[in-house]
Amino acid sequence: MLAGLLHDAHLAVRRTGNLPLTRGLKADMRDLTKDHRWLSLNTATVRRQGDLIAIIEACARHGIGAISPWRDQVAQVGLERAAKAVRDARLALSGYCRGGMFTGDRARRLEIRDDNRRAVDEAKALGASTVILVAGGLPQFSRPGSAASKHLSDAHAVAEEGIAELYEYAAAADVPLAIEPLHPMYAADRACINTLAHALDICDRLDPEREGGLGVAVDVYHVWWDPTVMAQLKRASGRLLAFHVCDWLVPTNDMLNDRGMMGDGVIDIKRLRAAVEAAGYAGHIEVEIFSQRWWSVPMDDVLTTAIARLKSAV
Amino acid sequence: MLAGLLHDAHLAVRRTGNLPLTRGLKADMRDLTKDHRWLSLNTATVRRQGDLIAIIEACARHGIGAISPWRDQVAQVGLERAAKAVRDARLALSGYCRGGMFTGDRARRLEIRDDNRRAVDEAKALGASTVILVAGGLPQFSRPGSAASKHLSDAHAVAEEGIAELYEYAAAADVPLAIEPLHPMYAADRACINTLAHALDICDRLDPEREGGLGVAVDVYHVWWDPTVMAQLKRASGRLLAFHVCDWLVPTNDMLNDRGMMGDGVIDIKRLRAAVEAAGYAGHIEVEIFSQRWWSVPMDDVLTTAIARLKSAV
Repeated sequence: MLAGLLHDAHLAVRRTGNLPLTRGLKADMRDLTKDHRWLSLNTATVRRQGDLIAIIEACARHGIGAISPWRDQVAQVGLERAAKAVRDARLALSGYCRGGMFTGDRARRLEIRDDNRRAVDEAKALGASTVILVAGGLPQFSRPGSAASKHLSDAHAVAEEGIAELYEYAAAADVPLAIEPLHPMYAADRACINTLAHALDICDRLDPEREGGLGVAVDVYHVWWDPTVMAQLKRASGRLLAFHVCDWLVPTNDMLNDRGMMGDGVIDIKRLRAAVEAAGYAGHIEVEIFSQRWWSVPMDDVLTTAIARLKSAV
Repeated sequence: MLAGLLHDAHLAVRRTGNLPLTRGLKADMRDLTKDHRWLSLNTATVRRQGDLIAIIEACARHGIGAISPWRDQVAQVGLERAAKAVRDARLALSGYCRGGMFTGDRARRLEIRDDNRRAVDEAKALGASTVILVAGGLPQFSRPGSAASKHLSDAHAVAEEGIAELYEYAAAADVPLAIEPLHPMYAADRACINTLAHALDICDRLDPEREGGLGVAVDVYHVWWDPTVMAQLKRASGRLLAFHVCDWLVPTNDMLNDRGMMGDGVIDIKRLRAAVEAAGYAGHIEVEIFSQRWWSVPMDDVLTTAIARLKSAV
């Protein structure tokens, strides 16, 4: 009975296609030690161990409640097949990775726009609660072949323009967009939006009336260092569309692919989760780990560990 | 004659032992293509190629105007010998590296305090214009052996307390302190002060009347990504005690030791230098490159390249 209710709550989050705010969910339903269906698996976490169908089956087997798949993984098995597998497994989608990479030569503006519109269409077909947006860094890295530039403030402007344009399209499709600020070490090559403050400034400019459909994705890996993070999480209330967890390892041996399993690093994840939930977020908690180490571990072991750590370290 | 004037200006910057503001220096004296005596070499840049005496001799040989030595390099050759070598070479000291690492077990508070007071004393003996402060990250990394913690906000508080206490001592000794915000990727293990805004907030709290002797060191490597950097540099007017340059490489293969030579990366150094100078900074431009690559190049070649890049890329 309780399991059934929880299950319905999970699917409700998915079906609303909008802010996964509390919507009557009781606080005690967020006891992660009792219900790991609040766990979502970002499918990049086990991308080397199997294709999307294998990942979906594994998540269902482990009682994980949601996934957040990547476009290339969906494309590999086909959009329809992916959507059917998700439905059959009764999984929610806590996000779709990813739109963005807005920065590029002006001549490629339509190509970039259309690429992002396709991401929105795919997210809708899959029933994802939001499209995760990674802004793009300097144009030569975001869209290889674009003219090299050192003008980061130009990149800021182009990214915001791209978000503004996509927001119109996504709103019409009823697919929320979540701007994910990435850690400042990715400013050059991945995302020139590197703080929650910057992402929320953009939300305020593009959605001043808080009509919805535009918000932020908060990943502890990207924001934990920020001395203003608690204030910004409070400010983010009503705009929190996704919450991602992993851990920061010391030392970190690779800027991209050395993220840690929750509990293995230095991030005070519980404190950040409490702040996110205090600000009204009650959606899935998504585990997203890019790690050579975890990619070399069998998929079932990764999921077992993630579930255990959700209970002990999140 | 002009050379003599410039030389005196350089030494004046050093002798004031205070803010290296314009003090009557004309704007055209900052033409780096004509006068590379504005170049300072952070001696870590060639630490593997020779000891401090060898570095000082090389800088004099290349007409470099200043150095910023590290405590271990000074200790290796002896403080008195280092001070004499600096004087004999008529070099200014654009900084002394480094004080800080304030975070550690409370039981070690006096040890940390005294360690930092010695840094101030050494800086004074050497005639350095400022002591560079690196805050320290989580205590277990800043002061190994300290109890492990994930409480970054505690580290913020302890670091600020440490700066406040050292400021009294340094002010009495007439040695300015420069808080250097480090890139956020060093928050865990090196410095929990990661933005100019945070460093300037501390300056405002500890020196609300702007009596001087406390300011910031701006390194392009640490701040270039920050969307608020131009506003913060403006705000830093009167508190700019040091300006460091190198470059951000894409990809960056090592978080600590893969910094680039100016011009080899993506930082718009000229723009940042213009902002720093518009805010009143007219001290040395310090090249600080931690790089396995440049440590493997003969010292004279590194200096020749740095001088050329100062003229073309800074």
